[in-house]
Amino acid sequence: MLTTNPFEDDKLREECGVFGIWGADAAAAMVALGLHALQHRGQEAAGISSWDGALFHTHRAMGHVAGNFDRPDVIGRLPGRAAVGHVRYSTTGETALRNVQPLFAELSSGGFAVAHNGNLSNAMKLRHDLVRRGSIFQSTSDTETIIHLVATSHYRTLIDKFIDALKAVEGAYSLVCLTQEGMIGCRDPLGIRPLVLGRVGEAWIFASETVALDVVGAEYIRDVEPGELVIVSDKGLRSHRPFKPVAPRPCIFEHVYFSRPDSIVDGTSVYSVRKAIGAQLAIESPVEADLVVPVPDSGVPAAIGYAQQSGLPFELGIIRSHYVGRTFIQPGDQVRHLGVKLKHNANRALIDGKRIVLIDDSIVRGTTSLKIVQMMRDAGAREVHMRIASPPTRHSCYYGVDTPERAKLLAAQMTVAQMSDYINADSLAFVSVDGLYKARGEEGRDARQPTHCDACFTGAYPTHLTDQEEVAPEDQLSIFAERVVA
Amino acid sequence: MLTTNPFEDDKLREECGVFGIWGADAAAAMVALGLHALQHRGQEAAGISSWDGALFHTHRAMGHVAGNFDRPDVIGRLPGRAAVGHVRYSTTGETALRNVQPLFAELSSGGFAVAHNGNLSNAMKLRHDLVRRGSIFQSTSDTETIIHLVATSHYRTLIDKFIDALKAVEGAYSLVCLTQEGMIGCRDPLGIRPLVLGRVGEAWIFASETVALDVVGAEYIRDVEPGELVIVSDKGLRSHRPFKPVAPRPCIFEHVYFSRPDSIVDGTSVYSVRKAIGAQLAIESPVEADLVVPVPDSGVPAAIGYAQQSGLPFELGIIRSHYVGRTFIQPGDQVRHLGVKLKHNANRALIDGKRIVLIDDSIVRGTTSLKIVQMMRDAGAREVHMRIASPPTRHSCYYGVDTPERAKLLAAQMTVAQMSDYINADSLAFVSVDGLYKARGEEGRDARQPTHCDACFTGAYPTHLTDQEEVAPEDQLSIFAERVVA
Amino acid sequence: MLTTNPFEDDKLREECGVFGIWGADAAAAMVALGLHALQHRGQEAAGISSWDGALFHTHRAMGHVAGNFDRPDVIGRLPGRAAVGHVRYSTTGETALRNVQPLFAELSSGGFAVAHNGNLSNAMKLRHDLVRRGSIFQSTSDTETIIHLVATSHYRTLIDKFIDALKAVEGAYSLVCLTQEGMIGCRDPLGIRPLVLGRVGEAWIFASETVALDVVGAEYIRDVEPGELVIVSDKGLRSHRPFKPVAPRPCIFEHVYFSRPDSIVDGTSVYSVRKAIGAQLAIESPVEADLVVPVPDSGVPAAIGYAQQSGLPFELGIIRSHYVGRTFIQPGDQVRHLGVKLKHNANRALIDGKRIVLIDDSIVRGTTSLKIVQMMRDAGAREVHMRIASPPTRHSCYYGVDTPERAKLLAAQMTVAQMSDYINADSLAFVSVDGLYKARGEEGRDARQPTHCDACFTGAYPTHLTDQEEVAPEDQLSIFAERVVA
Amino acid sequence: MLTTNPFEDDKLREECGVFGIWGADAAAAMVALGLHALQHRGQEAAGISSWDGALFHTHRAMGHVAGNFDRPDVIGRLPGRAAVGHVRYSTTGETALRNVQPLFAELSSGGFAVAHNGNLSNAMKLRHDLVRRGSIFQSTSDTETIIHLVATSHYRTLIDKFIDALKAVEGAYSLVCLTQEGMIGCRDPLGIRPLVLGRVGEAWIFASETVALDVVGAEYIRDVEPGELVIVSDKGLRSHRPFKPVAPRPCIFEHVYFSRPDSIVDGTSVYSVRKAIGAQLAIESPVEADLVVPVPDSGVPAAIGYAQQSGLPFELGIIRSHYVGRTFIQPGDQVRHLGVKLKHNANRALIDGKRIVLIDDSIVRGTTSLKIVQMMRDAGAREVHMRIASPPTRHSCYYGVDTPERAKLLAAQMTVAQMSDYINADSLAFVSVDGLYKARGEEGRDARQPTHCDACFTGAYPTHLTDQEEVAPEDQLSIFAERVVA
Repeated sequence: MLTTNPFEDDKLREECGVFGIWGADAAAAMVALGLHALQHRGQEAAGISSWDGALFHTHRAMGHVAGNFDRPDVIGRLPGRAAVGHVRYSTTGETALRNVQPLFAELSSGGFAVAHNGNLSNAMKLRHDLVRRGSIFQSTSDTETIIHLVATSHYRTLIDKFIDALKAVEGAYSLVCLTQEGMIGCRDPLGIRPLVLGRVGEAWIFASETVALDVVGAEYIRDVEPGELVIVSDKGLRSHRPFKPVAPRPCIFEHVYFSRPDSIVDGTSVYSVRKAIGAQLAIESPVEADLVVPVPDSGVPAAIGYAQQSGLPFELGIIRSHYVGRTFIQPGDQVRHLGVKLKHNANRALIDGKRIVLIDDSIVRGTTSLKIVQMMRDAGAREVHMRIASPPTRHSCYYGVDTPERAKLLAAQMTVAQMSDYINADSLAFVSVDGLYKARGEEGRDARQPTHCDACFTGAYPTHLTDQEEVAPEDQLSIFAERVVA
Repeated sequence: MLTTNPFEDDKLREECGVFGIWGADAAAAMVALGLHALQHRGQEAAGISSWDGALFHTHRAMGHVAGNFDRPDVIGRLPGRAAVGHVRYSTTGETALRNVQPLFAELSSGGFAVAHNGNLSNAMKLRHDLVRRGSIFQSTSDTETIIHLVATSHYRTLIDKFIDALKAVEGAYSLVCLTQEGMIGCRDPLGIRPLVLGRVGEAWIFASETVALDVVGAEYIRDVEPGELVIVSDKGLRSHRPFKPVAPRPCIFEHVYFSRPDSIVDGTSVYSVRKAIGAQLAIESPVEADLVVPVPDSGVPAAIGYAQQSGLPFELGIIRSHYVGRTFIQPGDQVRHLGVKLKHNANRALIDGKRIVLIDDSIVRGTTSLKIVQMMRDAGAREVHMRIASPPTRHSCYYGVDTPERAKLLAAQMTVAQMSDYINADSLAFVSVDGLYKARGEEGRDARQPTHCDACFTGAYPTHLTDQEEVAPEDQLSIFAERVVA
Repeated sequence: MLTTNPFEDDKLREECGVFGIWGADAAAAMVALGLHALQHRGQEAAGISSWDGALFHTHRAMGHVAGNFDRPDVIGRLPGRAAVGHVRYSTTGETALRNVQPLFAELSSGGFAVAHNGNLSNAMKLRHDLVRRGSIFQSTSDTETIIHLVATSHYRTLIDKFIDALKAVEGAYSLVCLTQEGMIGCRDPLGIRPLVLGRVGEAWIFASETVALDVVGAEYIRDVEPGELVIVSDKGLRSHRPFKPVAPRPCIFEHVYFSRPDSIVDGTSVYSVRKAIGAQLAIESPVEADLVVPVPDSGVPAAIGYAQQSGLPFELGIIRSHYVGRTFIQPGDQVRHLGVKLKHNANRALIDGKRIVLIDDSIVRGTTSLKIVQMMRDAGAREVHMRIASPPTRHSCYYGVDTPERAKLLAAQMTVAQMSDYINADSLAFVSVDGLYKARGEEGRDARQPTHCDACFTGAYPTHLTDQEEVAPEDQLSIFAERVVA
Repeated sequence: MLTTNPFEDDKLREECGVFGIWGADAAAAMVALGLHALQHRGQEAAGISSWDGALFHTHRAMGHVAGNFDRPDVIGRLPGRAAVGHVRYSTTGETALRNVQPLFAELSSGGFAVAHNGNLSNAMKLRHDLVRRGSIFQSTSDTETIIHLVATSHYRTLIDKFIDALKAVEGAYSLVCLTQEGMIGCRDPLGIRPLVLGRVGEAWIFASETVALDVVGAEYIRDVEPGELVIVSDKGLRSHRPFKPVAPRPCIFEHVYFSRPDSIVDGTSVYSVRKAIGAQLAIESPVEADLVVPVPDSGVPAAIGYAQQSGLPFELGIIRSHYVGRTFIQPGDQVRHLGVKLKHNANRALIDGKRIVLIDDSIVRGTTSLKIVQMMRDAGAREVHMRIASPPTRHSCYYGVDTPERAKLLAAQMTVAQMSDYINADSLAFVSVDGLYKARGEEGRDARQPTHCDACFTGAYPTHLTDQEEVAPEDQLSIFAERVVA
């Protein structure tokens, strides 16, 4: 089944978004709103756990937040003044449901619900050790490893057990944990994935992005810092820094594509960074043309930046259907080839006879770029110049982003010139790695001490990749496929 | 239940889109694609009828085309090389299903399926006459009146019966009829609603807009002309003009909001007309400001036109969620007030401290404008100047557009200055009626012989309104509420 | 897909049950209860229409009464003190929903809802005439013919129009019609299908069987008589006899299988008639054996009668699963042959080594008898003697009973001896036609003036069969297949 | 919501049925058939786990086997030649799904799926110990305790770990465990719940009752013996007896009500035992009457026994609707009182004026008996004598049977004479405890060494009840309520 999402199929995808609130009436309803604002970070499943002072309640479901967590009966089953939620983008299929977060455990210290954005790079190795000692896993999620490490830690308090567990794991984690004593938000020492702290009335909020604060009318206080563990409870806020300090390496792709343009990430407006990348692209790779056309919607800010910098007019040369939220399955083989225009259509009257600069945020497999260049040519474009608002994506991500295997990354297989031929453009250019750092306000990338994780562009992974290097592929699989039906 | 569609709640809504194809393999699948491209013209229900040479097959469903007509089992039950479909926006509730089109009847001459865009202004009067003579209606749709007029006509051939029926009705109708002999496309003498003719391979297509031709890879041939009746069949195309010629009056609002920007309507690019309206607005109502911000998505083309004309920068000051296709029901009273930001969010970092020109296509009740001006102010806008790319909407439409009663039209109750105060803008201006005609390439509105129906702005209705004037309100109601469950 | 209903697949099936009430609070809820008690008369679809003094409300659904009409939301949408309902057993497939009754029409005299048990034998011929005159049918049901005859009648009052329509039709009909003026119950002149009149408090009830009176606590008043038309309204009860009197011919199969054993049909207890048939069978066809075993559940009363008459012990040699209401689809080809025991299982410990008399009510195709005799042999039965509590079924029914074509009726193809061989029984006997009439309290069948319709046994049809004889098969088909989805 | 199951609401309910097969093609399909035959042992949820040689697959669902496990897509997702299944009757509500069995764990030795019939009486105490040592429970089921005991056992082989675990638990358990090495069937030392061994072709089967062998065409080999652990694998069958031998105490209520009449339990036909109880009842408590009437369906065998012993005629005085598998929710308050007749109706023509002996299998709360005696009186019965085919139920069961708290057991609150008055019978009698043992072929109950568990009648519990006696009520609750939606 071909979906009609041709221009979004070919993106890297953030795997998760998290949102937790402590101290608010209707906490679960607030979480539902927050998760809806983070829906772009994970669209396959969602879950919320709440604590009502006596019981923990969890509802987890495949599908979007809307349609599941906007139902009064569902929210009504999630009472309490504290709640944590999760949206997930991940592997499909029948095993998915038990992996939907928040994960929950009854520990000897009480209930413990966890929502995790990121990915541990030694989870499988730790899991084998835990199973040998008698732990029983209920999911195939790396996140569950953290819970078992907490459950079997020999420290006495829950916080000490939790820090003990975190010291055993490597990789990327922004975690929000709901306990009977308070809510914990923390980021790994490198701060690979984002996590912000907000406040509305007396309530504290942890969220992946500031847009989720906006939607509930909350104030953005600050980022949870890399390596920081923040505990909010009825007694207020405490901050711990249990790890040895290291230079942070937040993910630079959040600025390129993952985060919403109206979010503030690492203290900067994502919209303004994207416009700056577009402007940098116009400086690095100018072209004589009639129109600047964005690939909607993610290419729009960079296209505005490119147009303003170059003086070329910004025009909607591709019209996106209003009905983008739904997948339209191609009804029958005979019409399969027609699908590409269901969601986007060339604005033929505008394009015909023109030289256009097409702006997109990234190229992953290249399948989309091929189609869209062809769409412009079919609409009569005289020349099509493709400009990409990120460097070539050449390496897989192991920190919570869904990337294809390297062999499928176009930029891992071809030079830029070959890619230009492949997508049938008149010219193709990517912003440089230094140009990307310039758009972030730096002078360029400091190769000795880069300020971000840019491994997908450079291959410079900031942590060990233990599971990749030490665990045999056959040991990475669970032997259990489960399906439950309510 | 409040939906989270604050910026689209307050629009006039086209009630229908139609699409028919004769002579193609997988005709129903083609219709499904065409209807998906016309989804913006009617989102509450859809239906397709096909003819396989022996039997007519119909599937009608509440909801979108996607989710209903992209299922192989559904398309598989609609075999044949000819099919007609309909999308509908209309009254909700349990009586809706029997009104979903295409309507079908077995006449003595054979099967007859009808899809109708428009509204008859004397349907109720005709219905009472028909019931008195023994006709039994199965819907409350005005369209069914046409079918009973055909069934009871004393003419001999189906085409003569059909023309006989059309001569009895008044109002707006673009019809596509599927019969065993061929497919009929026709427009009322004034051509109030659009209908275009296209071709793909050997097959003929009728569609409400050219975007539906694009999606199936068809060529736009020409408009079906006002008062024209086009019959396509395996023998080719015939054209009839059974009505006395009158000057056409196509709906001007198709250019303002209803049609997609990538459609060609009345021979002109809708995108270019909208940009021209925006430019005209900049000429008529300039303002000193820092940014031009569109209300997404319908305000974007006019905003680009305004920005290009005024020299002010075009910027995305309001970010639309990717998840616009879904309604998010507010989970609980306590968070109801938060809903407005679920779908749109201010780009605060951009707006803060700026003087902005907000561009929207129309104001109906004003509820949305109120919220969006406030959203801009909350984000720190120093001044908010609202510019509307249509004249004030002061009158109801009786030709197939869902308009609120006049008392709810803000412009029917207030002056522009009052409206500006009401929505709390620093200034408010609408494009003039003459300006609107200028953007269509004319010198202004010719009051003696306007080239469009503009009754919603001017009150100049081009037909009688028989049901409004002659049928008592209590006789406009059906006594029958029905619900069927498969 | 094989269902696990092996012992009921092979039955003639009543096609409909009707229930109407006038003058009760919560009329629709009463109808739902009544229809549930009549569920055995039609299990594929159900519908209820109510009249609330201003509007008619109809809900129709595929499936059982339970699951559809026991939902408060459904009953809540059927307000009023008068309602009529229908259960239907009929052709499956996608065209079914529009045929689900009650059918409704808005006539010039007001609303008219009809529920019909029976089948007209000249409906197709009348339909062709009506379509030629301009009537548009919305279903393929013979019942709709009656409505169009009423709508187009030239008489003045609704009752006169209705009688005019009935005089045009031939065949079997027990009708309950809901109008704004009152409720009409009537039976065709021969009274082929049953209809009883009951009373609870001030309300009047029409129902197919007395069990439906029992379930709502109503009193059985009398049968609506053959050829009688009873009108109940707030003014009381009126009786009309518009037809020329003829000798009644009620269906004798109601006593054999269709009606519930706890109903009173034609003034007699069905249970007692079935026991009397069993006793008659023991007199006509005795056998030396150890046990009398009923085929559950329909063979039980006759088996008790046989056991009491013969002095042999009555024993449960076949155990029926408690979960009879559900169809179990065979999961996979490899286990298909196992299905027969899902619903019924031999009581092996009882059967082993015994000579048994198996009692069933009828044999249609013989497929079930074959399996059940084999089941008894597999359980160790020494001898299996089959005794059938009805005469051989040799002819199709055209009066509202679902019969296979004659070629599939075992008794139309074989002698009793051949049938005995075919089902592998040690002996087989049917009750005689005279014996059947004896169990009804007569001396035997009066060949010149039979007191019942027994055409399925004798081929003596009491009416013309116009559609069978005068309408070509290709004209019996509708050209329209429709599916609607709420 | 009141269901219309008045004559079954008031029963003790078996909580589970189990079925496992090793070595058959389409193993999961065989399990589905077996579970369908055991559906009476648990109707709220079902699950199947299969092992395909590489992976374990599990599907668990609320609801019946039919509707869930008869779907080809579901069975298709359960590949392999070994599978185990479970039907469950248990607490309702949203936490139920995670408790649906089989439970599964990935142990260091490989996969381990468990289906459990019975109830542990020290599960809660063991659970608290396990959580303190770091085990994380995913359900609130007592069965999961066994899995964690296995996972954390210090023995080396899986079988030794399993025996180690069983030695720690007390109570009733018939377990079927699926592992990669083979399938284990075992019963607790007292053999409280049943488990039989069967064979079909080369495959081995464990099942709760022999009817489940019948349905798949398998041969009944023998019972798994109390305290026996049988392992079947591709290498054949091994038997272990790891426990100190004690005198068995199988549940006597399996003969009274739980097991199907066509099952062989403890080597005896259940049908014949029930008839013998009825005969014993006729000897102990004769009465002068006209008819013996069973309360359908469970009272039928005892009624036949009573009738044959007493010489009174057996008659169907109560007719059960064919539609027993479905719950009919009362549509509206106004008709609530009518509900009792939806499922059962008096055969009034038979009952009127008669003295009847009503036979039922047990009285729990007495609510049903009250209604049914009244139904007989309303139908005109002259005298109603109630005879119960079990002794008075005076004590709760802690071994896997759902019993109301003692305060709701009628026989725990009243003498037989008071009960007779309460249900408004002319007389009431129960079979004696000794009479029950006589029907089982013994001379009576041996008070020093009873051969069955009869605690519900006598209060003589054969094990400790640790959780009842040592765990505080507040510690018996989980703090976690979860709901997952696919």
